[in-house]
Amino acid sequence: MSPSPAPAAPRPPLRVALAGIGVVGGGVVKLLEANRDLIARRAGRTVEIVALSARDRHKDRGIDLSPYRWEDDLGALVTAGDVDVVVEMIGGADGMALTLARQALTAGKALVTANKAMIAHHGLDLARIAEERDTPLKYEAAVAGGIPVIKAIREGASANQIARVYGILNGTCNYILTRMERDGASFADALAAAQAEGYAEADPTFDVDGIDAAHKLSILAALCFGTRLDIDAVAADGIRGLIAADIREAEALGHRVRLIGMAERDGAEANGSLYQHVQPCLVPADHPLAYVPGALNAVVAEGNFVGRLFFEGAGAGAGPTASAIVADIIDIARDEYGPAFAMPVDALDAAPVADPGARVGKHYVRLIVEDRIGVLAEIATAMRDAGVSIESFIQRGTDDDDGVVIALVTHEGPASAIHAALGILAASDHVVGTPMHMPILAL
Amino acid sequence: MSPSPAPAAPRPPLRVALAGIGVVGGGVVKLLEANRDLIARRAGRTVEIVALSARDRHKDRGIDLSPYRWEDDLGALVTAGDVDVVVEMIGGADGMALTLARQALTAGKALVTANKAMIAHHGLDLARIAEERDTPLKYEAAVAGGIPVIKAIREGASANQIARVYGILNGTCNYILTRMERDGASFADALAAAQAEGYAEADPTFDVDGIDAAHKLSILAALCFGTRLDIDAVAADGIRGLIAADIREAEALGHRVRLIGMAERDGAEANGSLYQHVQPCLVPADHPLAYVPGALNAVVAEGNFVGRLFFEGAGAGAGPTASAIVADIIDIARDEYGPAFAMPVDALDAAPVADPGARVGKHYVRLIVEDRIGVLAEIATAMRDAGVSIESFIQRGTDDDDGVVIALVTHEGPASAIHAALGILAASDHVVGTPMHMPILAL
Repeated sequence: MSPSPAPAAPRPPLRVALAGIGVVGGGVVKLLEANRDLIARRAGRTVEIVALSARDRHKDRGIDLSPYRWEDDLGALVTAGDVDVVVEMIGGADGMALTLARQALTAGKALVTANKAMIAHHGLDLARIAEERDTPLKYEAAVAGGIPVIKAIREGASANQIARVYGILNGTCNYILTRMERDGASFADALAAAQAEGYAEADPTFDVDGIDAAHKLSILAALCFGTRLDIDAVAADGIRGLIAADIREAEALGHRVRLIGMAERDGAEANGSLYQHVQPCLVPADHPLAYVPGALNAVVAEGNFVGRLFFEGAGAGAGPTASAIVADIIDIARDEYGPAFAMPVDALDAAPVADPGARVGKHYVRLIVEDRIGVLAEIATAMRDAGVSIESFIQRGTDDDDGVVIALVTHEGPASAIHAALGILAASDHVVGTPMHMPILAL
Repeated sequence: MSPSPAPAAPRPPLRVALAGIGVVGGGVVKLLEANRDLIARRAGRTVEIVALSARDRHKDRGIDLSPYRWEDDLGALVTAGDVDVVVEMIGGADGMALTLARQALTAGKALVTANKAMIAHHGLDLARIAEERDTPLKYEAAVAGGIPVIKAIREGASANQIARVYGILNGTCNYILTRMERDGASFADALAAAQAEGYAEADPTFDVDGIDAAHKLSILAALCFGTRLDIDAVAADGIRGLIAADIREAEALGHRVRLIGMAERDGAEANGSLYQHVQPCLVPADHPLAYVPGALNAVVAEGNFVGRLFFEGAGAGAGPTASAIVADIIDIARDEYGPAFAMPVDALDAAPVADPGARVGKHYVRLIVEDRIGVLAEIATAMRDAGVSIESFIQRGTDDDDGVVIALVTHEGPASAIHAALGILAASDHVVGTPMHMPILAL
């Protein structure tokens, strides 16, 4: 039984070691200092930082770390006798972060991490060590920053068979997309703005190519469907191929473009295949994801009894990430935790990978073509030959691109037919650049 | 420590008794049957209904209850030796529900309830019994139906000092308001539509007068601010006073009308006063609450590290409510629970009640006046004499009301000044009916 702490017999402090003091680590220090008394009330005991470690001790972080013991040796930090919880904020799927995580759990320490790449790639191994040692592994901050979506799905929606889980899992991309929307900007200009304002890295690959969102999606899928984490099974298409005309045409169609990570399991059966895809989508204007602005994140989970749940909040940043990390620490302080993926690792299914080409839906397709006789016929023929049925077709004169923009919306059909049509058109001399295609999110 | 259940040593089933088999109780039976295997995987043990009780055994509920033991005597149900968890779905703040809840907890059973009125009025007493007996008291379904907002605030946002919590806590009112919005309907017509579609009771008092939302708000406030539940301190103004013109004028001002329950604590200090008010508000069109359609609920919590969290979902209905109830049962099955209000009852503050008149903000005021010389001057003078500064003032010819509609927006000022101005105008012979005033939600 979980304790209801009696005020007469206070529990000993929970002793925390922080590994990696960057932006997020600094946020955790600030939070634990600023909200110290409130956390003690809510956790039933004080939470104390007992040791820190990071690459550079003397870097100016804008916070006074002198009250805390500094360990140059991560291994010593992790195995210290006075440490109950290790918070991993080093980052990276492997290397130091993974070594430290394994050491901490093997030593029977609780591990809290914000590291989505590490959880996506090694979450099952780590969860297995945690099970063997009967110690917590928590990672709320790894998905959607400050939104408590891991908890909401692992616990809040736990009574439901989840039909699908999807959302805006990368704030950088959403910032870029809403910037393109607002300013009519090109992708390149919106990316530059995001970089100037600190929303995008100098090398934006992880964000704009959908890799970061894929890590998060794989974690959500495992929790929703009781499946083994399988990052290699997540397809990821980023937003580099979008042009200003895509945003405009989507708007004209009553939609907005969002980078959506979606996971869906085929049927209720334990052997149903699992679809996991990060890609730009057209979101209908009456869907709450269409209103998620700027760098926010949002997640939708559809349960067979609860219906549609929608969660929105800050997906990144020092404060929100620290909020999620410390929520995990408080759960540990309260002894309110269980298996990392809601059930023992051996109970998770190995779901077959769904064929993304078999996925049926409406699609948006945009091409830029040379303005000459016969091009329309060429496109229409390619669509027909690939079995793509067209619902609407718009040709507009060019303004910001070297050619004519053609945007079409298909009737319901398999994604494979779209790929086939675009394969045919790839051979055309009259198609300029790479066509864009996006599924239209079904309500 | 919480267990990570080893598959080799399965834990015994969790044995549940259901008290009250109406719409929600039927939903719980259906859910526990439909998702039985999945729940067993997630909970680490099976969850079994061992007994039922309700007023009328022979009522047709559209489900087969014959597999379960029927108890005519609620007391016998609650104290039966083979019952671990009692689910209270009888309803009502007092009476049978309260008697049963006390009996169950006193007998050391876990109690799960969807009863917002009972928790709002007697939650502290019940939590105290639960503490003494070291047994769980859970009530996720009592606030915002299927949205796991109790968990999100109690645990997900637990690291944060919450500045304010607010939201759409009554689906009936939101259905009526969005219906007025969509159809230009009067309150009476929209209410009739809500009744016809099963969204409102024959006697809609609890919903449309804000009482139901007040119950929920008092529970959220206690969790967010670590304060003692105080339902008597919640002011509640319903939506009966709204006319079609209010919805139109709000829209013209870039806002939508929503019934908002808001709780805000004055400052971080333990002695800060607590404001709790349910009332119709003007919500800016760029706030996510403005987009909450139909009978949905939504809750916003603003934390000092996480920023704004937004949760949306179904606030009522058999499926969503059952989802929340069974989530509580699964938490109990997992041994992942703690004090009902996040900390022992004795640790909660008794917050002074804030003076609602001192609350500063912009207000919308609407009057219907006779169309004659001098009325405008009378209104302007009353506003001036009460110290209300006017930002905008619109007079429109009447269409659906017997008089001229005057809608004005004030500059920031205390609510007491609005009340004073309306007090002066109440004496006027030229003001028709009761004026409406609503705060404009500050972002």
